[in-house]
Amino acid sequence: MNDKEKIIQYRNFLKDSIRKEIDFSQTDQSLQVEVPPIEKPYDLGKKRIELIYADWDEEYDIKLSEAMKNRISRRNFKGNSLSLKELSFLLWATQGLRRLAGAYAFRVVPSAGCRHALETYLAVFNVEGLEEGVYRYLPLTHELLLEFKTPNLKEKMVKAAFNQDFAGSSAVTFIWSTIPYRMEWRYGLDSHKVIALDAGHAGQNMYLAVEAIGCGTCAIGAYDQEYLDELLKLDGVNEFAIYLFPVGKVDK
Amino acid sequence: MNDKEKIIQYRNFLKDSIRKEIDFSQTDQSLQVEVPPIEKPYDLGKKRIELIYADWDEEYDIKLSEAMKNRISRRNFKGNSLSLKELSFLLWATQGLRRLAGAYAFRVVPSAGCRHALETYLAVFNVEGLEEGVYRYLPLTHELLLEFKTPNLKEKMVKAAFNQDFAGSSAVTFIWSTIPYRMEWRYGLDSHKVIALDAGHAGQNMYLAVEAIGCGTCAIGAYDQEYLDELLKLDGVNEFAIYLFPVGKVDK
Repeated sequence: MNDKEKIIQYRNFLKDSIRKEIDFSQTDQSLQVEVPPIEKPYDLGKKRIELIYADWDEEYDIKLSEAMKNRISRRNFKGNSLSLKELSFLLWATQGLRRLAGAYAFRVVPSAGCRHALETYLAVFNVEGLEEGVYRYLPLTHELLLEFKTPNLKEKMVKAAFNQDFAGSSAVTFIWSTIPYRMEWRYGLDSHKVIALDAGHAGQNMYLAVEAIGCGTCAIGAYDQEYLDELLKLDGVNEFAIYLFPVGKVDK
Repeated sequence: MNDKEKIIQYRNFLKDSIRKEIDFSQTDQSLQVEVPPIEKPYDLGKKRIELIYADWDEEYDIKLSEAMKNRISRRNFKGNSLSLKELSFLLWATQGLRRLAGAYAFRVVPSAGCRHALETYLAVFNVEGLEEGVYRYLPLTHELLLEFKTPNLKEKMVKAAFNQDFAGSSAVTFIWSTIPYRMEWRYGLDSHKVIALDAGHAGQNMYLAVEAIGCGTCAIGAYDQEYLDELLKLDGVNEFAIYLFPVGKVDK
């Protein structure tokens, strides 16, 4: 395939033409294959940390349009820590649960067919009450799971982001992975564009939410896929990293 | 290719592995090919409609967390019209200009490398002061361009959305297209995932902004690509539709 043909093929990913080729009576959902878990299962022996629920309107009083207007890419973080409450707010805003109805977990952000094929990992550097390490958000119980600790996590995150140093100078760097089967179960080959759209939905809520707590962020789409997946202990096939958001306090 | 291999190939679209294969010294930007226009050029003979600038914080007083919390999929619209001011707000929130700096047009929403490869079309059914027709948003001047009128636009939009009738029962249906070369100029083959992420960013601002004006929306990712592109007079290669948002007044 030459470059011109490749570009056409890659552009096709953004189209919904494939829908017409799919026999939706043959998707796993239609075939009544068991629905995949709405949250990645975890070892109950691992340490969990309760997060904070609050009336976020009252806690962080910023107007919608103000947050939209003030949002810019922010990469220069002050060294200050985030509180666990602030982190709880960011997790709520980007992947928090809104309502549970059987196999459907409605979240604060929308997702195609309510499939929510994302998981949230955190490289925590400077959050009050948390040791440095890699955590995962558990939306069903609004908890953090300590996945593992590893030496030189900052340096590793910077390396994973191709030396974009704000991936390691943040108080916390969010990494969204996808478990694509969660979407494929319903939509088959017509799943992957909408997973990216969903990551964009969550990302925009992140951009807005940080404005409410004196923080800043800038999305990272340029990263070393294989290195980061290995760092996070993801298999790179059934789950892999797709989008990063370093967050830290900023001067405004 | 069997289905299993296809799934792997499609999943790869969501990864950033391709970055390592690209010679970024050979992208059009690096080769100093002229930068593509930041807004699709238009015929100056076409009718344009001035939109409204306002202090949106003052006009539409909703808190960020309230908008996030209240957001749900809303497909049942009342027949009421939108005002031109309300439409102006939605366009500002989703694609409005924040700052112009040479070839860079910073917008209210973020975009990879500030490339902003989206265009906004509107199927207008019930907006005060506007005739039914297909319009395009001009972010550089905050205007609407009347692209064309066509009979039975509602029916055509419903058909384009595979009979999801809220695509035609809305007051206005937003259709974002992409001009992928705007992103490819900078990122080559590593452009298409980030275009989808960008459409998600804009989509989330849409979901939140409608909450401020008594409206609702629900994203449409399932549409007849070829029919919709032809309806909008897009060539389907260098520009094509990627995401739809019908908007209308709702009971809350």
